[in-house]
Amino acid sequence: MSRVTPRVLKGFRDYLPEVMKPRAAMLRKVADVFERFGFSPLDTPALEYTEILLGKYGEEGDKLLYRFQDNGKRDISLRYDLTVPLARVIGQHTTLGRPFRRYQIAPVWRAEKPGRGRFREFTQCDVDIVGSDSLLADFECVQVGVSVLKALGVDHFKIQINDRRVLDGLMRRIGVDDKALQQEVLRCVDKLPKIGWEKVKIELADKVSLADEGLNALHAFLHGSLADIDASVVDMEVAQPGIDSLNTLLAWAENLGIRNHLAIDLSIARGLDYYTSTIYETFLTDLPGFGSVMSGGRYDGLMSMFSRDDVPAVGISLGVDRLLAGLLELKLVEPATATTEVYVLGFDAETTPYAQTVATALRAAGISTTMHLNAGQKLGKQFKSAGRSGAAFVVVAGSRELEAGVVQLKDMGTGEQTELAVSDAVARIKALQDG
Amino acid sequence: MSRVTPRVLKGFRDYLPEVMKPRAAMLRKVADVFERFGFSPLDTPALEYTEILLGKYGEEGDKLLYRFQDNGKRDISLRYDLTVPLARVIGQHTTLGRPFRRYQIAPVWRAEKPGRGRFREFTQCDVDIVGSDSLLADFECVQVGVSVLKALGVDHFKIQINDRRVLDGLMRRIGVDDKALQQEVLRCVDKLPKIGWEKVKIELADKVSLADEGLNALHAFLHGSLADIDASVVDMEVAQPGIDSLNTLLAWAENLGIRNHLAIDLSIARGLDYYTSTIYETFLTDLPGFGSVMSGGRYDGLMSMFSRDDVPAVGISLGVDRLLAGLLELKLVEPATATTEVYVLGFDAETTPYAQTVATALRAAGISTTMHLNAGQKLGKQFKSAGRSGAAFVVVAGSRELEAGVVQLKDMGTGEQTELAVSDAVARIKALQDG
Repeated sequence: MSRVTPRVLKGFRDYLPEVMKPRAAMLRKVADVFERFGFSPLDTPALEYTEILLGKYGEEGDKLLYRFQDNGKRDISLRYDLTVPLARVIGQHTTLGRPFRRYQIAPVWRAEKPGRGRFREFTQCDVDIVGSDSLLADFECVQVGVSVLKALGVDHFKIQINDRRVLDGLMRRIGVDDKALQQEVLRCVDKLPKIGWEKVKIELADKVSLADEGLNALHAFLHGSLADIDASVVDMEVAQPGIDSLNTLLAWAENLGIRNHLAIDLSIARGLDYYTSTIYETFLTDLPGFGSVMSGGRYDGLMSMFSRDDVPAVGISLGVDRLLAGLLELKLVEPATATTEVYVLGFDAETTPYAQTVATALRAAGISTTMHLNAGQKLGKQFKSAGRSGAAFVVVAGSRELEAGVVQLKDMGTGEQTELAVSDAVARIKALQDG
Repeated sequence: MSRVTPRVLKGFRDYLPEVMKPRAAMLRKVADVFERFGFSPLDTPALEYTEILLGKYGEEGDKLLYRFQDNGKRDISLRYDLTVPLARVIGQHTTLGRPFRRYQIAPVWRAEKPGRGRFREFTQCDVDIVGSDSLLADFECVQVGVSVLKALGVDHFKIQINDRRVLDGLMRRIGVDDKALQQEVLRCVDKLPKIGWEKVKIELADKVSLADEGLNALHAFLHGSLADIDASVVDMEVAQPGIDSLNTLLAWAENLGIRNHLAIDLSIARGLDYYTSTIYETFLTDLPGFGSVMSGGRYDGLMSMFSRDDVPAVGISLGVDRLLAGLLELKLVEPATATTEVYVLGFDAETTPYAQTVATALRAAGISTTMHLNAGQKLGKQFKSAGRSGAAFVVVAGSRELEAGVVQLKDMGTGEQTELAVSDAVARIKALQDG
C-alpha cells in the first residue's frame, strides 16, 4: 500500500499527552462539581436522525450540521449541541422523574469557520434542569457555572446575564412585533460585542426598517443599566417579569458572595432561537474579544417539539476546549510533562520477573510505574530514558538486588540512592506522595 | 413546527443516569489503571480523512465505515477504531518520544449489524506501546488488561492468546502461501468459536482448496495445545519464535500470579489485517458465546503506512460498552438510583437565601446536595421528592431555623431528626461519608 500523508481535517486537532493531561484533569473536576450539585450523568449517541436536530438552531445553525446518508439511506447528522438531544431524551423516556437534573460531557460538531479557540469538534460540559419553572433552577445553573470555573482555578470571569422578556419589552416599544423580525434583530444585537454598534446599525437597516426614534431607544437600551430601564425604552408590562427575575438572581448571588462574577448585560441576546427568559454568556476578563466560554439560559419552548406537554427547562454549557485554549493563552494551564512517578530499569532474562514483581507491587499501591522495555541496554541510556519520563524515582532491581531481596531506590531530584526492601520502597514513595 | 417523534438510530442508545452512573465510574477506574502503568492520555478527532482509515481493516471493515462528504467536498469518515488514528498521530507528530505509551478512551463507529452487546457506537479504552519490539511490551499490555478487569470487579475471565507467527507456520505447512488467501483462512478460523468447525470447513472449502491432509492438520492444530505443536502441523522455522514468545508470556504471568487468567488458544486469529505476532481476545467465562470484551496484539506493520520508518507497536483495547452489557447481564453491575446525599427543602422568599447558604456549605465540603426547587410546596410532597432522590439526609432550613442559625437534619434511614448548627451538620455528614 502506498504511504498516506498523515494529517487532520481543518478545524480539528489532536490532543497530545502534554495538553491532554491537564484537559483530562479539567474534565474530571467539572464532573465532580456537577455531581456535587446533584446532577446525574447522561450519554446520548453522537449521531441522530437529522429531523431531530433540524430547525432548532436557526437557519444558520442548520447549515453547520455534519449531515449525510448512512448505508441504510437514513438522513443522519452529528449532534450540534447537547441540549436538543436532551429534549429528545425527555420526549422519548417519559418515565424519567422531574425535575430531571442531568449533566453530559461530550463532543459536538459544527462545520463553522475555525478560529482562535473555535474548533469544528469540541467538548461541551452541560448541566440542565428539566421540569421546573422556578427561578431557583436558573440560579442553580449560574451557581454551578461559578463553581466550575473556580474549581478550574479561574477567578477573572464575568457571567453576563440578560432576560429575553426584557428584550421582548424593547421589541414591543420599538414596534418590531413580527417573531421572525424579532429574531433578526436579536441576531444582529448578539453581534454587538464582536462588531460594535455602528456595524450593528448597518446590519439592522438591512433587515428591518427602524425609525430613528426606535434606533435611539435601542441604543439607549443596549448601553443602559437595569436601573435605567423604564417605560421610555421598553413596554413595562412585557419586560417587568424579566426585570424582577434579574434583580432576584443578583440578590441571591450577593447573599452567596458571588455577585462579583455576575453582570447584567442587556445586549446579551444569544443567537439560538429557543431561549425564553434568562440567558447568559461568560467571558474571561483577561482575554477581551476571546468569545464566550460558558453560556445557556431558559428554554421553555424547546421540549414541546418532542413532548406532548410543555416542559420548562434551564441549563448552562461550558465549552471546555475553548476555555482550555484561553487558559493556555493566559498560562493558567501549563502543559504537563511527567507521565509516571517511578521508572524501573531492566537487565536480563534472569531478573526480568523480579523487576516485574517490583513494578506490580508499586502499581498495586497506586503508584504510577513505568518499566524500561529495552532490558540490558547500557545503564546511562536507561537513566536518560528515566529522566525523559519525568519520574521522581528510579528503581534498580538487578541480579544483586534479586539475590538480597532488595531494590536500589534513586531519588531523581536529590540524586540520593538507598537500598531498601521492596515493601519499604513502596511505603517510602507512598508516604512522599501522600505527604 | 410540527412535533417530531423522538427516537434513536438502530444500533445506538441513550445511557440514562441509572446505567450511566456505573458506566462513568467504570471509565474512571479504567483511566486510573492505565495511568498507574505509566500510560499518558491522547485524544484525536472523531472525523478523519477517509484515506487515513481505508484499507486498514480489510474489505469487510472498509464497508462498515460511516463515510461521507463534508460541506467542503472532503471525503471523511468517523473513526472505526483508535489504533489507526494512533498510527496517524505517530506519523504526523514525529517529535513524540519513544517508546510512546498512550491511552485513549473514546467512542468509535461501525455500521455493523447490531446484536447482543454489539452497538454501532461504542467506547473503546485502548493502551498501546509504540516504538518497542520487546516482548516486555506485549506482556505489559496483557498485564494492564488483567488489572483493568480486576479493578472493575471482574474475576471470571480468560485472555486467550495466540501468535500470528505460529499461524504462519501452519499456513506454510498446509501449503497456503498466498498472503490474500492466508487472510481468508484466518478470517474463517476467526469465526470458529462463533460457528463451529463444520461451518468453518464449509467456508474454507468455498475460499481455498485444501487437501484432506491439510484440513486434518488444520483441525489438529486448532484443537491442540501449545505443547502438541511439532513439525507435523507447522513449519517449525516459521513458528518457533511465536512458540517461544507464548511460553515466555506464560512464565511471566505465572511469576505474577495471573497465569490463571491466560490461556493459549491457537484458534484465535483476529480478523484485522494488521497484526503480526502476539494476538489476544478476552472472554467472560460466565457468558459463553458473548464475544470478546478486550482484544489486541502486536502490529509492527501498520505504522509504516504513515511513517517513513518501520515502528513496532503493541496494544490492547477494552470494549467497555460490551463489557458493561455483560456485567449488567451477570448482575455484577447494578443500575444506580441515588443521585445525591443531601436534599434541602424549600419554603419562601424569606428563607431561600438561607437554604442556598446551607446547600453551598455542604457542597463546599464535597457533599452532593440537591435543592428542592418548588419552594413552599407541602412538606409531605417535598419529603416524597427527597425520598425519590435517594438522598441519605434531608435538611430543613426554614424561618425558625434561620432565626436560630441552625438546621434540622433528618436521617432518611433511621428517621432520626436532629437540630444542629450548619457547620456541625456539615461535619456530621462528612464524618459519616468518610467513615
